[in-house]
Amino acid sequence: MRKPVWLFSEGSLKRRDLLGNKGANLCEMTSLGMPVPFGFIITTQTHLEYQRLRQRIPEGTMEEVKAALLKMEIRQGAEFGNPVNPLLVSVRSGASVSMPGMMDTLLNLGINDEIVEGLAKLTANPRFAYDTYRRFLQLYGAVVGGKGIHPYTQILKDYRQQHGLEEHADLDVGELKEIIGLFKKIHLPPDNPWTQLENAIGAVFSSWNNPRAQTYRRLNDIPDSIGTAVIIQAMVFGNMGQNSGSGIAFTRNPSTGEKEFFGEYLMNAEGEDIASGRRTPRSLNEFKEESPILYNQLFQLQKTLEEHYRDMQDLEFTIQENRLYLLQTRSGKRTAKAAVKIAVDLVNEGLISEKEALRRMDPEMARFFMHPMIDPQAEKNVLALGLPASPGAVTGKIVFTSEEAQKAKDQGDQVILVRVETTPEDIHGMQAALGILTTSGGMTSHAALLARGMGRTCIVGCKGLSVDEKKQRLILEDGSVIRKGRLLTLDGSSGEVMEGRVPTIDAHEDQDYLTLLSWADKYRRLKIRANAETSKEALTALRFGAEGIGLCRTEHVFFHPESIDVFREMIFAQSPEEKQEKLNQLSAFQVRELKQLFKVMDGLPVTLRLLDPPLSEFLPQAKSEIEKLARRLGRETESLMKQVGALHEKNPMLGFRGSRLSIIYPEISTMQMDSILTAAIQSQRNGTIVKPEIMVPLVTSSGELEVILQNLEQTAKQTFLRLGQNIQYKLGTMMEVPRACVQSRTVAPQVQFMSFDTHDLTQLTFGFSREDSGKFLPDYIERQILAFDPFIHLDQQGVGNLIRMALEQSRKVQKKMEYGICGDHGGDPRSIKFFHRIGIDYVSCSPHLVPVACLAAAKASI
Amino acid sequence: MRKPVWLFSEGSLKRRDLLGNKGANLCEMTSLGMPVPFGFIITTQTHLEYQRLRQRIPEGTMEEVKAALLKMEIRQGAEFGNPVNPLLVSVRSGASVSMPGMMDTLLNLGINDEIVEGLAKLTANPRFAYDTYRRFLQLYGAVVGGKGIHPYTQILKDYRQQHGLEEHADLDVGELKEIIGLFKKIHLPPDNPWTQLENAIGAVFSSWNNPRAQTYRRLNDIPDSIGTAVIIQAMVFGNMGQNSGSGIAFTRNPSTGEKEFFGEYLMNAEGEDIASGRRTPRSLNEFKEESPILYNQLFQLQKTLEEHYRDMQDLEFTIQENRLYLLQTRSGKRTAKAAVKIAVDLVNEGLISEKEALRRMDPEMARFFMHPMIDPQAEKNVLALGLPASPGAVTGKIVFTSEEAQKAKDQGDQVILVRVETTPEDIHGMQAALGILTTSGGMTSHAALLARGMGRTCIVGCKGLSVDEKKQRLILEDGSVIRKGRLLTLDGSSGEVMEGRVPTIDAHEDQDYLTLLSWADKYRRLKIRANAETSKEALTALRFGAEGIGLCRTEHVFFHPESIDVFREMIFAQSPEEKQEKLNQLSAFQVRELKQLFKVMDGLPVTLRLLDPPLSEFLPQAKSEIEKLARRLGRETESLMKQVGALHEKNPMLGFRGSRLSIIYPEISTMQMDSILTAAIQSQRNGTIVKPEIMVPLVTSSGELEVILQNLEQTAKQTFLRLGQNIQYKLGTMMEVPRACVQSRTVAPQVQFMSFDTHDLTQLTFGFSREDSGKFLPDYIERQILAFDPFIHLDQQGVGNLIRMALEQSRKVQKKMEYGICGDHGGDPRSIKFFHRIGIDYVSCSPHLVPVACLAAAKASI
Repeated sequence: MRKPVWLFSEGSLKRRDLLGNKGANLCEMTSLGMPVPFGFIITTQTHLEYQRLRQRIPEGTMEEVKAALLKMEIRQGAEFGNPVNPLLVSVRSGASVSMPGMMDTLLNLGINDEIVEGLAKLTANPRFAYDTYRRFLQLYGAVVGGKGIHPYTQILKDYRQQHGLEEHADLDVGELKEIIGLFKKIHLPPDNPWTQLENAIGAVFSSWNNPRAQTYRRLNDIPDSIGTAVIIQAMVFGNMGQNSGSGIAFTRNPSTGEKEFFGEYLMNAEGEDIASGRRTPRSLNEFKEESPILYNQLFQLQKTLEEHYRDMQDLEFTIQENRLYLLQTRSGKRTAKAAVKIAVDLVNEGLISEKEALRRMDPEMARFFMHPMIDPQAEKNVLALGLPASPGAVTGKIVFTSEEAQKAKDQGDQVILVRVETTPEDIHGMQAALGILTTSGGMTSHAALLARGMGRTCIVGCKGLSVDEKKQRLILEDGSVIRKGRLLTLDGSSGEVMEGRVPTIDAHEDQDYLTLLSWADKYRRLKIRANAETSKEALTALRFGAEGIGLCRTEHVFFHPESIDVFREMIFAQSPEEKQEKLNQLSAFQVRELKQLFKVMDGLPVTLRLLDPPLSEFLPQAKSEIEKLARRLGRETESLMKQVGALHEKNPMLGFRGSRLSIIYPEISTMQMDSILTAAIQSQRNGTIVKPEIMVPLVTSSGELEVILQNLEQTAKQTFLRLGQNIQYKLGTMMEVPRACVQSRTVAPQVQFMSFDTHDLTQLTFGFSREDSGKFLPDYIERQILAFDPFIHLDQQGVGNLIRMALEQSRKVQKKMEYGICGDHGGDPRSIKFFHRIGIDYVSCSPHLVPVACLAAAKASI
Repeated sequence: MRKPVWLFSEGSLKRRDLLGNKGANLCEMTSLGMPVPFGFIITTQTHLEYQRLRQRIPEGTMEEVKAALLKMEIRQGAEFGNPVNPLLVSVRSGASVSMPGMMDTLLNLGINDEIVEGLAKLTANPRFAYDTYRRFLQLYGAVVGGKGIHPYTQILKDYRQQHGLEEHADLDVGELKEIIGLFKKIHLPPDNPWTQLENAIGAVFSSWNNPRAQTYRRLNDIPDSIGTAVIIQAMVFGNMGQNSGSGIAFTRNPSTGEKEFFGEYLMNAEGEDIASGRRTPRSLNEFKEESPILYNQLFQLQKTLEEHYRDMQDLEFTIQENRLYLLQTRSGKRTAKAAVKIAVDLVNEGLISEKEALRRMDPEMARFFMHPMIDPQAEKNVLALGLPASPGAVTGKIVFTSEEAQKAKDQGDQVILVRVETTPEDIHGMQAALGILTTSGGMTSHAALLARGMGRTCIVGCKGLSVDEKKQRLILEDGSVIRKGRLLTLDGSSGEVMEGRVPTIDAHEDQDYLTLLSWADKYRRLKIRANAETSKEALTALRFGAEGIGLCRTEHVFFHPESIDVFREMIFAQSPEEKQEKLNQLSAFQVRELKQLFKVMDGLPVTLRLLDPPLSEFLPQAKSEIEKLARRLGRETESLMKQVGALHEKNPMLGFRGSRLSIIYPEISTMQMDSILTAAIQSQRNGTIVKPEIMVPLVTSSGELEVILQNLEQTAKQTFLRLGQNIQYKLGTMMEVPRACVQSRTVAPQVQFMSFDTHDLTQLTFGFSREDSGKFLPDYIERQILAFDPFIHLDQQGVGNLIRMALEQSRKVQKKMEYGICGDHGGDPRSIKFFHRIGIDYVSCSPHLVPVACLAAAKASI
């Protein structure tokens, strides 16, 4: 292994994979001449080796660490482990992809009973020295000692309550010593600073595999194989008194994206005091007033950094006795709204190109703009006001634990998770909730950061409310009570917490967002269509930028209350004449519905899939319902029961549906084809431009297609004759069966387009029934047996290879073929990237995912 | 189009594709100088053109026909259409593959009211002339007139009855004239002989597409695209009186294969009189006595033909006024037993090689030798004796129509079809029946020929019985009655019709058959294993030549009455301890069963598939059964119902089964693995050589396999430690999910063998549930949407391509991989040919198909 330890002065951004994101940024700041405390990095490679050695630090590493530390001692003029002039260090994690708060950090290493006294003497600040010792014991015991943070915070809380103190900062030396005694009883660290250091490095390495880090990586698709670096840095102290402090700053507002230097700080505190949200911090505006020189210095630094990185930065700084230090910079997490505004602004400021703006965009962020915001006209009863940590407007039932949030979500409820403050253990609950409300913490607290990342609406630091965890209720300032399960509405943009459900309107008209989408349209090659059945859905799709309908499930109209009975009568018709009469009635419904659809989609293609579900889906299953149907049909219940029973299938997914129905009951396809063309011609007569594309589902062989297309073309001829008018139409097939992909060569010559239903293709390629896979699939994902859920992201190796094969083969025989995607993956950015790469022409997704798909398609093109 | 018409003297066997089988053989016989009436052939190419032109004879063809006919007139010294010296011709069909009786034939063309009188004068044989006219009118009206044969035979039958005549041959000229008058009323042919001829050619061409010809082609996998030739030949007349006649002969006995010249004839009759079975013909032995010179001539000709063709021949001959003519030769249809004996004899006679013998063998014939024959020791009550037309011994319920045979078969009954005589319309019924019994007809009747081809046991010409079709019963000579549905036993080797069920024994020990199998073993590359679970099945498999077990479904033992309750208790165990206790009990069953199996399979590999079906298959579904189980378990019925219900799946085929169970419930795999190895080691200690191959089912990804194999290997270590002994074993996976095939590259490095379950792979590749596909698949086959049922023959284009892909990819990473097949296709010759070609190592099939597979594998190798 080469060079396990790098000084900040040796590295650069280019070695991010080796030095981690945090480490590489510290190197970069060092080379920019910024006030970064001296430090060095143990590489990610060393960490990978550590894992290969089963949690043992590779030989030679500690020697390199000692050598680097020697340089630090020289630079700092202090000595690690020397009670007279002690050097303390921090030990932090830092992977090449930011995983905020997920791994462990140790601070103030190199202290013990003897050194704390030396430190007190040296600084003439015993309160600082003992507070530092207290902090060391607390983190070391929690992390290396494996005790967790809870016993320590409990002691502090109890102690404060017993002594009537509001903040830790109020503890005096005697009190701190008492607390130190209590802390030592929980876990007693080794006296030897070197042992502390080696243990700390091991603990940070090992924290890579703690459950919350694993969950975070899985949720964010971060591979396990990248590993983490460890950063060892000379401590600077924000807890040295009222001329010291710590802060977090953003170069632009991470919530709105406004170009304003924005941040929070606490005097006489370390950074963790802000991140944990225990004390509500002060805004940088106050800092500007109180310490204009330091503020100005910080302001210049952030400006330089943003220009250097050409992106909004999230900084950590510490002031030690009126000297400013930067401890970290990184691209700041931001709300979707901020991300869009910042990107557009940076383009306008000439810092980045349009393409770069698109490249930086997480297409999923577009989902936010589909979220509503509070209707300005709405009446609302504001119960409390908190900090607007992540925008959006949501209404949900309140719950008080992550477990309940998950449970309620599983039951289909929309929930708001209410906590005093969130911890990394709450990821699951936050994921399950629509919104998060905390009564403490600031804009940069854990809850705020994570909610913004997840696109969840979030209000933090809502002091007007208090949480009664035991009784599972919220208490308002006037003493009134809101119990679990009651509806609240959160406005993440204003910080308002409102009673009940408040009407909302759309965020879709945001100008920056529309600008970004217009850029996406400029650069993407993939066309975006939407899956829509009704004219209402089609309108939504159009509003969101759809360029056509990629999947209209034509049978949806037969499920309407007015037509379902006719459909059933058709199934059970006793004579050809009766059957035809029912088909005629169904045709009238189909024509009416399609004319509305065509009108909305004027000029754009509309893909109409013929009847797909098995007939049994149209029938009642309960005996009482069958009896009702029997009465309607004038039939014996028993014989009807038998007929309904005969339609039951053991594996309906593999049964009598799709094209199989078109072959055995061609009269249904005939009726649908005739209806489609009749609606199209009538619409055309009304001046609408109609581009119908008729799609045959569930095809496995060219033979099926031949029989069906012959019938469709024959029907078209008759319809044209009857109406005295022709219309252009396309014929295509849905590709959803592995065999059709393997044999696309024989299917291709007959059709003008192929649309892959990646959902059903995934079911058949894996042999996974979506409905039944709940018994094992979550476990597969949890245990990484599958890297991800193949119903969410396309399985490129398996399903994707089948699609690629289908494209290669069919292109050989049909150069002009048009290829589409109409499964759920059509709205998934990662899948879209793949579809772009293999040469798909368009994806079709649910209307509200159209902008996501647009952005993903643009990113794929760039 | 080149040369639509070929004289017999111009063609040869090499042009069989163009001239058809019958035509090419007539050319061959002509070139051998045999007495073949002059004739010529319209090519199959002309027929294909005819179809392209939508049933129009291509231009220029009739001119060529006229030119050829002119040559015929010169050779025969007679003139087509000339009343003074008329030439009559036959028009027959003949594809390159024999389709006996499936297409139409016309005889005696070129006759009309005027010509019949000329013919009577010329031959001084008015009876012959009018009988010939009668025959012409009958066939022409039936075929060209589209009236079918029935109205004509009805008139003849009625007339005979009214006039107390036994045979057509007894009709005198006056009577024939009366009948001719009646026939003309049914359909009046054109007077012009040339019109007759052109119409006849068209009718024969068109008969290619009659339903029974289509069915025959489908059943025999004959492509539609080969088309038929038409043979036009000068008539020779077997109906010229008692010195004329017609006959059919086989160069060897087609039923037993004995080397004996064998045949039947009728004097004063045309060939159709024999084939139809209306008159019971006489044996050639009688012919030898009555006409030794002609017999001797015939004997020499057949000898020459057999030596020329190096195969048993089926001849048609006609004697016209003591002159012998050959009308046809072809490889004779034969029983499986005869096929084997003839092939082995021909090898012994030095006429063909062992490889040639195997090449000629239809592997499906081996099925016959799996059929039983009547136990010589058995008591039997013989009701009647018929002609032994196709051997085998079967017992079944009697039915009297093809429809009933089909219906009864669909209900799972074994049936015997009883008919006076069969017609081509009976193919379906014969296919559905185990045996066929006719009361009239000879050894070369339609029923006999077809039954031999199909491998059905058949007795014909059973005069001691008469069929009462109306009352659906058989009447014995003593007047007693056997009604529909009663059991009869047929011995197709002796012709005995017996009452009830008579015990049978095996035909498997036939020496010629065993010789042939030993040749097959010599030449095949594919290994043959059997699918077997019990030691009894394994014994059968061994007896039939299996070289191992390719699929033992290990869970079968848990379905035994003694273990099913334990399995259920295991599923519903309330504590880990209880679960383990139940698993231990199950292990004891598994070990005991496997030891028996290993003992039988001493020295041979045994592939053991881990638990595959979903747990729900082990549970009762009826409420009363669940109640019983609840009592057993001491549980509330309702909560148990809920648990059972929770295991219900919408698509179990795509659900929680196979490897998915092994991952979620590793303890079951652990138990099975431990049981397998324990049984193996204990068997080894008893001196048995055990080669266990453990197979993981339903794998879709390398991740699953990794988790499962780790558990299995861990278990193996512990078992070896516990028993203080190791044993070699292989680990492999069942390939049944499309994704595993597409991704075999990642699965391969972990396993030593892959066994393709082509049955499930077919289900998933097509999206066809075997259970549910009955609603559409038969229709698909019927309508040729699919060329064949992919569950019977492997779909090489789709499923086969996936397998091929899996082999190619996995070989790249695992050179030593062993590949097997364990789906139903492992016993299907056509599929086996494919498996051989792509490099599979072994197929596994049901024990009774092992010889079929052996022969198929040998054929594939040759």
